[in-house]
Amino acid sequence: MKKLACGVDLGGTKINTGIMDQDGNILCNVKIPTEADKGPQHVIDNIRKSIMESLNKSNIDVSQIAGIGIGAPGPLNADKGVVECPPNLPGWIDIPLVDILKGDFDTEIKLNNDANAAALAEHLFGAGQGINNMVYMTVSTGIGGGAIIDGKLYNGANSNAAEIGHHTINFDGPRWCNCGNPGCLESYASGTSLVKFAKKYIDSGRDTILKNIPLDDLKAEDIFDAAKSGDGLALELIENEAFYLGIGIVNIMAFYNPELIVIGGGLSSQWDVLYDKMMKTVDERALKPNRQICKVVKAKLGGNVGLIGAASLIL
Amino acid sequence: MKKLACGVDLGGTKINTGIMDQDGNILCNVKIPTEADKGPQHVIDNIRKSIMESLNKSNIDVSQIAGIGIGAPGPLNADKGVVECPPNLPGWIDIPLVDILKGDFDTEIKLNNDANAAALAEHLFGAGQGINNMVYMTVSTGIGGGAIIDGKLYNGANSNAAEIGHHTINFDGPRWCNCGNPGCLESYASGTSLVKFAKKYIDSGRDTILKNIPLDDLKAEDIFDAAKSGDGLALELIENEAFYLGIGIVNIMAFYNPELIVIGGGLSSQWDVLYDKMMKTVDERALKPNRQICKVVKAKLGGNVGLIGAASLIL
Repeated sequence: MKKLACGVDLGGTKINTGIMDQDGNILCNVKIPTEADKGPQHVIDNIRKSIMESLNKSNIDVSQIAGIGIGAPGPLNADKGVVECPPNLPGWIDIPLVDILKGDFDTEIKLNNDANAAALAEHLFGAGQGINNMVYMTVSTGIGGGAIIDGKLYNGANSNAAEIGHHTINFDGPRWCNCGNPGCLESYASGTSLVKFAKKYIDSGRDTILKNIPLDDLKAEDIFDAAKSGDGLALELIENEAFYLGIGIVNIMAFYNPELIVIGGGLSSQWDVLYDKMMKTVDERALKPNRQICKVVKAKLGGNVGLIGAASLIL
Repeated sequence: MKKLACGVDLGGTKINTGIMDQDGNILCNVKIPTEADKGPQHVIDNIRKSIMESLNKSNIDVSQIAGIGIGAPGPLNADKGVVECPPNLPGWIDIPLVDILKGDFDTEIKLNNDANAAALAEHLFGAGQGINNMVYMTVSTGIGGGAIIDGKLYNGANSNAAEIGHHTINFDGPRWCNCGNPGCLESYASGTSLVKFAKKYIDSGRDTILKNIPLDDLKAEDIFDAAKSGDGLALELIENEAFYLGIGIVNIMAFYNPELIVIGGGLSSQWDVLYDKMMKTVDERALKPNRQICKVVKAKLGGNVGLIGAASLIL
């Protein structure tokens, strides 16, 4: 019989929990709101509930799974199973999530960073199958990353390796990111930053069809839509977005010299718009041998990548 | 009897070759000029000569050593034993150095990047003993790096991992570096760049005691000396130098999350001048958990680090 594991993808807005087999097939999954604003105790109850519901829905007992893997926002300590202080889970400070859940579920429980888990998922079941040195970068409201080195997930000294979003690409850059590091990649190239740049230009009086959208409702998708309809400002913003992502990729290549970079997250849905522009910067700036050996591709696993990665921590 | 290996540190100006035992003791070494301007064939003859001389000087036969390790400037391919096109070895294009030397020496021969070899040396015998996740950065005329991951030298897909000097710290930065990537760390923080910044300020009319030195003779040491005597421009340049190095360290921490960063190379001799200023930037900007777990220390091995690292590729 195939080995099974439970995966929990704990996000700031929703918890996606499910049962996966060793081939990466999801037998069932359950999505519920995180309700992060109600504090850690409430969120932990929701995690518990989602695990119970997944087990019930697939009609299996906890004794039939090899364990429970949890992907959570960082910073966290994977070895100790402790969630430290993620900005999008208010009130969480050094919560020993693994120990708490061990009181409820008599099975192995592992915790890791959500982007690390997603990197593992893409390595085992997605775009990076069979590739031993690869880096995964997720670009959505924030930017995260995970590195597979010699076929294994690289955690670093305290589970915070490949924090790609928070490395500096311009030391004189904006202080937009809550990491506190001005000019980090996330402060230039995340979906949130794309919207911030748009607002800045609109505030300064630039003409654009984006002005028809109330500023508070403006989303990254709106900017891509406006660019498709030929809006000058939107086109410029997308050009810049691709450039910043290109710089991020140049730096990933310089540090890790991977065979493959896999890009996921919400903005990867705009792959056809971004790819050529992004790679123009990479081709111009990356070290030649590092560029030559490395492919840059879109992630394969879609919305369940976090769940698959979390369950993969066990299998 | 202790195992022995021959190490060859091939630099742009000199070749430092010696015999080392498995405890990192150098039994003898031989330094000769590289004479890089005379082309690859001449340099290869010099390498051969330096190996023969080391063996003769220590009165051992090639059959008594476990092999010959060579640290050379990148880019190169360690797996294939090929030196690709190092900027400071003119005329070297895809030279199969390992195969060539195998015709002369009947023993195992390994090639790796000089900074990678130095990282291995500091890990095995220097400041990083017993530390399984560490990064070595060398700061002199250029900036290089090497990463030890889970106790092993990390080469990447084609031996160009940890090219720290050529990652972007300001995408709008100067195009000073021959890597072609504007605003790379080397173009801000190498000894060469420190001198370039000084010349730029002197050209623009800044008053400084550095004007007493003919511009073509100006060296990084002169700037440190001028700073010690209170020269305003020199103090500002050193402040900036430390800031740029700090940004490099912030990014190393974000990518690798190491336990230890070891800094070597010529500029590390100015450790007492640079350390506090450099770490101020790191403390302000690095991700907190990545900063907390990581020490930043000066390299221990000094001028023979390249030789020790090269020999360590074998032992």
